[in-house]
Amino acid sequence: MPNKPVLSLDTHLLASHVNDTDLSKLQPNINHVLESIEKKTCQGNNFLGWLDLPNKMQSQLEHIKTIAAEVRERSNVLVSIGIGGSYHGARAAIDFLSDPFLGNDKVIYLGHHIGTDYTMSLLDFLTNKQVYVNVISKSGTTTEPALVFRLLLDRLKGKYSDDELAQRIITTTDAGKGVMRQITDAAGYRSFIIDDDIGGRFSVLSPVGLFPIAVAGFDIEALLAGAQDMADYCLDNNDVLSNDVLKYAASRYVLYQKSKTVEILSSFEPAMQYMGEWWKQLYGESEGKDQKGIYPTSANLTTDLHSLGQFMQEGSRFLFETFLHLEKSRRTMNIPSVKGDVDGLNFIAGKTVDFVNQQAYQGTRYAHADGGLPNMTINLPKRDEYTLGALFYFFEFAVTVSGLLLGVNPFNQPGVEAYKQNMFALLGKSEYEERRAMLQKKIKGEE
Amino acid sequence: MPNKPVLSLDTHLLASHVNDTDLSKLQPNINHVLESIEKKTCQGNNFLGWLDLPNKMQSQLEHIKTIAAEVRERSNVLVSIGIGGSYHGARAAIDFLSDPFLGNDKVIYLGHHIGTDYTMSLLDFLTNKQVYVNVISKSGTTTEPALVFRLLLDRLKGKYSDDELAQRIITTTDAGKGVMRQITDAAGYRSFIIDDDIGGRFSVLSPVGLFPIAVAGFDIEALLAGAQDMADYCLDNNDVLSNDVLKYAASRYVLYQKSKTVEILSSFEPAMQYMGEWWKQLYGESEGKDQKGIYPTSANLTTDLHSLGQFMQEGSRFLFETFLHLEKSRRTMNIPSVKGDVDGLNFIAGKTVDFVNQQAYQGTRYAHADGGLPNMTINLPKRDEYTLGALFYFFEFAVTVSGLLLGVNPFNQPGVEAYKQNMFALLGKSEYEERRAMLQKKIKGEE
Repeated sequence: MPNKPVLSLDTHLLASHVNDTDLSKLQPNINHVLESIEKKTCQGNNFLGWLDLPNKMQSQLEHIKTIAAEVRERSNVLVSIGIGGSYHGARAAIDFLSDPFLGNDKVIYLGHHIGTDYTMSLLDFLTNKQVYVNVISKSGTTTEPALVFRLLLDRLKGKYSDDELAQRIITTTDAGKGVMRQITDAAGYRSFIIDDDIGGRFSVLSPVGLFPIAVAGFDIEALLAGAQDMADYCLDNNDVLSNDVLKYAASRYVLYQKSKTVEILSSFEPAMQYMGEWWKQLYGESEGKDQKGIYPTSANLTTDLHSLGQFMQEGSRFLFETFLHLEKSRRTMNIPSVKGDVDGLNFIAGKTVDFVNQQAYQGTRYAHADGGLPNMTINLPKRDEYTLGALFYFFEFAVTVSGLLLGVNPFNQPGVEAYKQNMFALLGKSEYEERRAMLQKKIKGEE
Repeated sequence: MPNKPVLSLDTHLLASHVNDTDLSKLQPNINHVLESIEKKTCQGNNFLGWLDLPNKMQSQLEHIKTIAAEVRERSNVLVSIGIGGSYHGARAAIDFLSDPFLGNDKVIYLGHHIGTDYTMSLLDFLTNKQVYVNVISKSGTTTEPALVFRLLLDRLKGKYSDDELAQRIITTTDAGKGVMRQITDAAGYRSFIIDDDIGGRFSVLSPVGLFPIAVAGFDIEALLAGAQDMADYCLDNNDVLSNDVLKYAASRYVLYQKSKTVEILSSFEPAMQYMGEWWKQLYGESEGKDQKGIYPTSANLTTDLHSLGQFMQEGSRFLFETFLHLEKSRRTMNIPSVKGDVDGLNFIAGKTVDFVNQQAYQGTRYAHADGGLPNMTINLPKRDEYTLGALFYFFEFAVTVSGLLLGVNPFNQPGVEAYKQNMFALLGKSEYEERRAMLQKKIKGEE
C-alpha cells in the first residue's frame, strides 16, 4: 500500500487538457527520471543533497534550537542577510506560519536587494533594538549580502564591544571554502554549514531556512517531520496516475506541450504570498533555461480576482493555474446578523468567514475552468509546520522530475551570472576591463 | 514645441524587435484612437472621467486635506476597506512614498480578501488603537469590503458611542445610488463621491486614492500637479515616435504582434513592489479580454534576479520587460573601506550604495537584451508625489491607447463577474438556485 499523502492533488478540472492517456504515455519517461534520481545519475547529480535533508538535519536540530533560543532571549530582532535561496525559504515559512499583525516582526530581511532607502531605514530602525545577525551566503562574495553586511557591521561596531558583536553574528556558509568561511573563522563567529550538494533554492530545510524559522518561534522538528513523510511518499510509488507529486510534474509537462506556457500559483490565504515568491524561484530557476520552461507567476486571491481575474477568466489562453488551497483557517469567526439587513448580507449570517472564503475558492475554480483556464489544486489540511514541510518537499521533488522531463538540468542557474558580470564591469572591478569598455561604448551610443 | 515630459521612455533596447518603421505604421491607428478619446466616441466612452481628474479634483483638495488632518490628529490608524481599484492605488502610492521601517503604518488595509486569520488579527490589533475607517465601495455590495465592514462595525460598537463612531467612519461611494450611499445617509457618515464615469482601476487620482494618501501624510496637491503635467503632455503631440506615452503603448502592441505575450514590470527600488500590483490590475483588467492581451507580471530587483532572473535571461522567449527606473535614491550612503579587504569589496569603497544599484540596473538591461529579452525603461527622476502623479497618469493614458489599438474596450471587466456568480450561488443567495444546483452536481461528481 502506498503511503497516504500529507497533501492531496486534485486534477479533475484539467480534464479537457490533460487526460490519463496523456499522463500514462509519460510513464516510461517518469520511470527513467526516477531511476536517474535514485541512482544519482541525472543531470546536476552533484546537487541532490536536498533529498535526504529531512533525515540528515535531525542531528543538528538541538544545536539550531539552542542558538535560536539564545537569540530570542537576547534580542528584539534577528537581521537575516541573504538573497535568492538564502532569503525566500525562511521568508515564505515565517510569513506562512505567523500571525499577520501580532508577532510577525522577530526576523527582518536585508541584503535581498540594493535599495539605499530601505537599507538606511532598517539601520536606523535598529538603533534602539537589541540585534542578532544571521549572514547566509555559501561563498560570501554575492554582492548584495556582502555589501549590506559591511554596512551593518560598520553600524554595530559603535553599539557593541568586539566580543559582544562576535557573539551576536552567526553565519550560515560553506564548511571549508570561501570568503565567508574565512571571515567567520577569523572573527570567531558561530556558524552553520551549507553542504556542497545543496543548491540555494533547495536549501530551506537546511540551516539556511531552519535557523531563522526557529528564531521566529516555529517548530522546525514538525517542519522536518512533514518533509520526511512527503519524502517517503515521493519514492514509495512510481505510478504517475496515483502519485500526486509525479502527477503534478507530469501534468505541467503535458500542459506545456499544449502551449500553456505560464503557470499561476493562486491561493485564497493571504499568508501564502511569500510562498508564491519561494515557488517562483524554485520553478523559474530550475526550468527556465535553454529557451524552455513554464513562466511561474503567483496570485493572491480574492485580491487578484479584482485585478488579474479579468485576464484569467477571458484573456489570452496560454495560462494554467495551480491552487494552493488551505482547507481551513486557524481561527473561526462567525458573521453576525444585522437588523434591517442594510448591506444585504444576512443570507450568510451565522456562517463563518472561512466558509465564505471556501465558497469563493470553489466558485473560482469552476468559473476559471469554464472560461478555458485549466486548473488543478494542491489541498493543504492546515496552516502549520508539518503541512508546510510536506509542501516544500512536494514542490522540490516535483520540479526535479519536471525539469528532467523537460531535458534541462534542474540544479544549475548559469543565466544568473550575466547581470553580475555586467555589474562588476560597470563597478570597475579588475579583470573586467574589456567588458567594461564594451558596455560603456553601448551606453554612450544611446546618448 | 511639445511639453517636456516629467518621465522619459527609453526604447533603444527594443531595437531588434520594434523599430521606427513598425511604430510609424501604427500612426494612422494611433490618430484614430486619439480622436476617439478626445471626441469621447471610443469603446467604453462613458468611463473617460479619469482624463480630467487632475483638474477636477482641485476643488475638493481642501476638503480632503481637512478631513485627513482630523484623522491624523484623532487616530493611530486608518482602516482602509476596499478591493481592486479601491485598494491598489492608495497602497501603491503610500508604499512608494513611505519610509519602509519608520512611519509606514498609518493606513492599514482590510477587505481586499476574505482571509479569516488576517481579519481577526487586524481586529485584535485595533483593540488598543484609536481608529478611523474609510470604506471605499461604489455600490456597497461587493462581498469582500461589505463583509469586513460588517465585522469591523460590530467590533467598534463596543469601543465608541454611536455618535463618536459615526464621526469616525468616512465612506467613498456613489453620489446617489447604491447600498453604501443608503448606509452613509442613514448613519450620517461623511463621504467622498466616486463619479459615475470613473472606473475602479482608474480611480487613484479621485478621492478613492487621494484621501488615504493624504491621511498617510503625503502631498496630494503635488501628486495632482504631476498628473496634470502628464495629461498636458499626453494630448500635446500625436506623434508615436516622439510622444513617450504613445510610444510605450505602440511598442507593447508591436511586441504582442510578435508573440511577446508576457510583460514584466521590473524595478530596482523595493518601494515599487505595490506599484507593480496596481499596474497589473490596470493592464490585466483593461486588456485581458476577448481571449486577447499581454499578461502583466512584475519583478522586484535585484531580489528576483536571484529567482526569476535565470528564466528572464535564458528561458522561453515570449517575455518582454519594462523597467521602472528610479534615477536616484532619496538618501545617500557611502560604502566604507575595510582594512584587509576581507570581503573583496574595497574596489567600491567611497562609492554610494545607490551607485551600485544603478550599475546593477545598467548591467541587467544590457544582459537581458543580449539574452533575447527585449526591454525598455521608464525613467523616474525622483521618489516623490509629483513624479508618482505623472506615472499614474502615464500608465492610465497608455493602457487606454493600447487597449483601443488591440480592439477591446479598456474600461469594462465582464469576466470579474464569473467567480462572483458562482460564489453567490454556493453561499445560498436567492435567485441563484439554478446555478447552485449545477455547481453542486459538479462538485459532487468529483468526490
